[in-house]
Amino acid sequence: MTTIRDVAKKAGVSVATVSRYLNGNGYVSKDAEKAVEAAVKELDYEINQVARSLNTKKSNLIGLILPDITNPFFPELARAVEDVALTYGYTVILCNSDENPEKERNYTEQLKKKYIGGFIVISNQLDAPHYTDIKLPIVALDRAINESVPIVSSNNREGAALGTRALLDRGCRNILFLRGPEELNPANDRYEGFMAEIDGADAHFSVLTGPFHFEESEELVESFLKAHPETDGIFASSDVSAAGALKAAHKLGIDVPEDLQIIGFDGISMGEMLSPGLTTVAQDIYEMGAVAARMLIKLIENQPLEERFHEVPVKLIVRGTTRSVRT
Amino acid sequence: MTTIRDVAKKAGVSVATVSRYLNGNGYVSKDAEKAVEAAVKELDYEINQVARSLNTKKSNLIGLILPDITNPFFPELARAVEDVALTYGYTVILCNSDENPEKERNYTEQLKKKYIGGFIVISNQLDAPHYTDIKLPIVALDRAINESVPIVSSNNREGAALGTRALLDRGCRNILFLRGPEELNPANDRYEGFMAEIDGADAHFSVLTGPFHFEESEELVESFLKAHPETDGIFASSDVSAAGALKAAHKLGIDVPEDLQIIGFDGISMGEMLSPGLTTVAQDIYEMGAVAARMLIKLIENQPLEERFHEVPVKLIVRGTTRSVRT
Repeated sequence: MTTIRDVAKKAGVSVATVSRYLNGNGYVSKDAEKAVEAAVKELDYEINQVARSLNTKKSNLIGLILPDITNPFFPELARAVEDVALTYGYTVILCNSDENPEKERNYTEQLKKKYIGGFIVISNQLDAPHYTDIKLPIVALDRAINESVPIVSSNNREGAALGTRALLDRGCRNILFLRGPEELNPANDRYEGFMAEIDGADAHFSVLTGPFHFEESEELVESFLKAHPETDGIFASSDVSAAGALKAAHKLGIDVPEDLQIIGFDGISMGEMLSPGLTTVAQDIYEMGAVAARMLIKLIENQPLEERFHEVPVKLIVRGTTRSVRT
Repeated sequence: MTTIRDVAKKAGVSVATVSRYLNGNGYVSKDAEKAVEAAVKELDYEINQVARSLNTKKSNLIGLILPDITNPFFPELARAVEDVALTYGYTVILCNSDENPEKERNYTEQLKKKYIGGFIVISNQLDAPHYTDIKLPIVALDRAINESVPIVSSNNREGAALGTRALLDRGCRNILFLRGPEELNPANDRYEGFMAEIDGADAHFSVLTGPFHFEESEELVESFLKAHPETDGIFASSDVSAAGALKAAHKLGIDVPEDLQIIGFDGISMGEMLSPGLTTVAQDIYEMGAVAARMLIKLIENQPLEERFHEVPVKLIVRGTTRSVRT
């Protein structure tokens, strides 16, 4: 039977792109659309046919364990996981863990006794026995800890270097870095990327550590800006923190981007709704979820993985919270 | 066995509040927290015990069919459904329909052949055969169409009257109402609420119909404000549309709230991240999801429903896009 992978290969695009096209969700370029259409036709790929396998597979349930679906980073991931899963005839059980190891254990222990095929896990607890001893396929998403578990994440270090360089190139010389929680690997990678890039640059910098949380970031930044009015650039490790920083600047009457430039990290859609629109280091969140789902399904179906560590590239999206590059 | 309902009754709070407390998610007042703690203790209610029933029930899967989890209104609903489901030993399958009847039909037809206990459905398609002939419990959420299906929704009409009155009370005399899609009952109820309240008021008004979509709302409002600079109030039928209106105002250099006041509808957390913060008619989104989940579980477990139509009250949250009331 023709698979979505065959279609992707034929069309010369990613599995995620084919999935987006088939599910009618998310951006697909005109060129990719044409290529996928042609490949579907040529390979005689029956779209609705796959959904029928919903009824024929044994373990066609995937558990998606994430901290909290109301954190705006996770819905896009969940959407991608579900899209790809559906395309392959799987359905997705949503598990909000609140980063509580006890809740995660409950989910894994109870679901593994039933019909679950495997888990996609966003957690800091990957070393815990309920993951290491599970004897079911697991793919880690966003956060790597346990090296025995395949992982999909962004290139966080490079992304942070990119964001830092963007502030320096735009003339910032007094930069505040809003570091995320120390227990989160992606936050630490971003911190390292910032430190590597700022090292030796002709700029002063400070680092504040805080949660990826709007109100707390707003309060942290407001206090900091009052004490350090010379600050001319803020690089936040998440878009939600960046939104808090922008709000603090507005509250203090600071002109963004003229007197203070702000860059976030994530690329969630909320960024464009802010005024000015948020410049950010964007992760390809949909691609991350799609690749993780594809990897898990391969594991469930005993297919070989081409790679156990997949890093998704990031890119800078320039909006209104930064000025043009000074040459 | 003591149930969560017993705890709620004893504590004098809603099932949703107990669920929030047990799952450590969402706001619970100090008073409610104390009452729930006391009730849990007095009734000797074992929190982890319920999760064990995950493994003992036959149909412990709930299908949650919603348009798109990346629309910021739905993650809060999904979170509440999952929290309550978990408390009762159920798990939730996430189904993104893209409001595509074919996808909805696929989900219901395939899942009903398996182990699904019932569905919570957010859809305009409730009259379709795959719902009317399903022979499984269904609860409609947010959107009522088919009267044979129990429904949980906000008091949309009253909410719209509340928002309209808020603009009038704050001196607005040239009001633009951003109406939502005509195929959506909640959007129509909001339109009726607006019309009932504006009728006879000493104010001019216009109505523009558009999707609950940021960019399209921004464009619609930008054109309108250019043609009608006398506009001093905008009431948008969703927070995302209101964010678009605010962005348009900023783009045109219009002072919000001094020269133009804006009110949204929904109460999603993004509203507070905007500058100024968005005044909005807030739905109790979590309560809606929690009540719907409780109703569905009752139906699955053959318990009587006390009501087939549950309307959740709304309230006005005043932030920075409106001025103080003129007396």
